[in-house]
Parts: sequence; structure tokens; C-alpha cells
Amino acid sequence: MAQDAGRGSGAPRRKVSTLPANFSGAALTRLGEQASQRAEQVNGELAALTYGALVRQLVVDYEDPGEVNVQLERLGYNIGLRLADDFLARSGAPPCRRFVETSEVIARVAFRMYLGVSARVASVAEDGSAYSVVFEENPLADFVEMPTALRDQLWFSNLLCGAIRGALEMVQYVVSVSFVRDVLRGDAYNEIRVALREQRYERAPPDEEL
Amino acid sequence: MAQDAGRGSGAPRRKVSTLPANFSGAALTRLGEQASQRAEQVNGELAALTYGALVRQLVVDYEDPGEVNVQLERLGYNIGLRLADDFLARSGAPPCRRFVETSEVIARVAFRMYLGVSARVASVAEDGSAYSVVFEENPLADFVEMPTALRDQLWFSNLLCGAIRGALEMVQYVVSVSFVRDVLRGDAYNEIRVALREQRYERAPPDEEL
Repeated sequence: MAQDAGRGSGAPRRKVSTLPANFSGAALTRLGEQASQRAEQVNGELAALTYGALVRQLVVDYEDPGEVNVQLERLGYNIGLRLADDFLARSGAPPCRRFVETSEVIARVAFRMYLGVSARVASVAEDGSAYSVVFEENPLADFVEMPTALRDQLWFSNLLCGAIRGALEMVQYVVSVSFVRDVLRGDAYNEIRVALREQRYERAPPDEEL
Repeated sequence: MAQDAGRGSGAPRRKVSTLPANFSGAALTRLGEQASQRAEQVNGELAALTYGALVRQLVVDYEDPGEVNVQLERLGYNIGLRLADDFLARSGAPPCRRFVETSEVIARVAFRMYLGVSARVASVAEDGSAYSVVFEENPLADFVEMPTALRDQLWFSNLLCGAIRGALEMVQYVVSVSFVRDVLRGDAYNEIRVALREQRYERAPPDEEL
């Protein structure tokens, strides 16, 4: 198995960066493209403007940008719970036996399938318990001009963090997810940090599952 | 020209239903498919769930379903103003010289391009000043279960009416647009009625244009 590479040699064992062969970047990228072609699609500009209307509504409602971040994450969480089933049924992605394997599946398959863009994995923690998803293009943020008052406080696309958290919870990984960098704040790229909090080994009874 | 068909015969002249050759259904359907393939796409399920979150937020904010309809239409109007430029630049649709010509362009090109579904034109008024856009599939309303209290009052997809009104206003047609039938209310299909209120022949000065 790939994660045993280096065993017995003097080289440090870096479990976290060696994934099974069916998690190869090229194979996952291909899966993402295929799944994205099979799915129903909506025009990116319409989706971006609709998302922008949602964010604007929350800004009006809550005034405090920090609270808007919380609400966007919460809405995304519910969306992630819903999307997880669809993803498992349609993506063709291999099952993730270790948490770190979810990184490439999210970056290469889920981002392509749902947002139509490529993302990559970066800054994987030595013990595999955290990673970053990095991407340049963000279709949700097309056409957005952030008012100065919000620029340093609002994480405009925070719904994505919630969606990742909800989807991972459906496969028993309790995580915290947050934006670290955002092109809308002048960063060179977008970076979402995903950190494992708890792995559930038993399924909860059906009526407590959500 | 096509609209002169029937001249001199005893048959009634039905200007409104005879469109120029480049407005043929097949030609416009092809345009819609091509434009939809060129555009950036977002997964339909993610778009539907995001739109659902927006509607739910407005229901919480405004309580009165009638007011939610108004707000959705207003948000859609702003989106329509933005989309019109994109549509004119990318659709390849022929310019509409008469109001009635906008019907086929909206149903066959715009619906395919932005929502990924086919729509058709129905119930064109004899004088060409009103028409219906009819469609079965509505990607915005996937996964929606309407609470009974809202079912007969909320027009869930009213954003679409606003978007049509905004886009037509950008090409000098002031219209009123409303849902007449909605599958979510138990109707067999969705029907949006578009009625011309005023045609502007002069462009407003740039600073008054929006």
C-alpha cells in the first residue's frame, strides 16, 4: 500500500502526503470533469448574482459582518448535508478511509462538480488532521465589488465553508472550516482551511443523524 | 417577409404569430444550446439550494408572502439589468424589432442559456402585446417542498419575473411580468405572463438609464 512507502528506510514516513493510487490527481480530476458533465447546470453568472443577492440580504438583516459570516456558514452547512448524498451517488469518487484523503476529493472532484473550477490541496498537517483547499477562480464572487466597510470583515463566500463542513459531517468527520485568504480581500488566491475535530466511528441513530 | 404571408387572401393576417425566418424555433434553440455550452456553469443542485436559502431568508424577514413575492421580483429585476448586457454579447440572438419577437428569444435562448431548460411560447395576444412563457422543468424549484401556509400565496420563483422585466427594460420594453401557473402549486406546468406597458423609442441620458 502506498502509505507504507519508505518503511524500513531511514527516510521519515510521511503518511499524509502519500495517497492510494486511485486518489491520484489526474484520476480525480477526470472524475470531477465527468461528474460535472453529467449534472444539470445553471449559468454561472445567474448563480453568482443570486448568491450575491443572498449575501446582500443578510448584510441588511444582520448589519454585523461577523454575524453574516456565521449565517452564511450555517446556510452552507445545511446545503452540505443535502449535497453529500448527491455527491456520493454521482461523483464516482473512491471512499475515503482516512481523513486526509477527503482533501483531494474535495479539491479535485467536488469543486469541479459543483463550482466548475479547479482547486488544489496545500499545507497538509504532518499528522493529516488538517489541510487547505486553494483556488484562484471563485464563481460565487464574480462581479462582486466589496464596500470598504465590509472588505476586512466579511468572508463573502463563507457558504462554501459551511457546505464542506456539512458534507464531511455526513461521512462522520466533524470539522471546523474557515477562509484564510480571499481574492476579494486582495489576496493572491483563495484558501479554505479544513481541520478535523472528531471522527465518529458509529452512526448516530437515524432520528439524531441531522 | 414572413409577416406578409396571407396578404391578399381571405385568411386573417396574423402578424403576431409569424416571425422572421431567423426567429425559427429550431434556429433559436440551437443558439441557446451553443451559448449555454460556452458559458461558465454551476451545478444545478447547488444553485437550487442557494436560491432556496435566499427565499427562506426573505420569508423569515418579511413574514407576509405577498411581500416576499415583491422582494424576489425586485432582486430579479436587478439581476435582469445585469444579465441583459451579457445576453446581448454572448447569445448571438437576432435583434428584436417588434416586442412579440422577444417571446421566442426568451423562451428558447435565454431559458436554455441561464437555466439549462427549454421553454415555449403560448397564448400570444392578437396584437402581439403580451405572451406567455411556458415550461415544465424549473431548476430553481428542485428539492422544494412548500409549507401549506405558503403554497397558495408565495410565487417561489418570482425572481425569474423580475429578471425578465429587468432584461427587457434594457432593450427599451417596459413590461409587467407575473407567474400565472406554478408546478409547486399543483399546476401541470409553469407559466409566466409578459405584458408590454410601454415601448421607449429614445434612449434616456446615460445617467438616467438605470
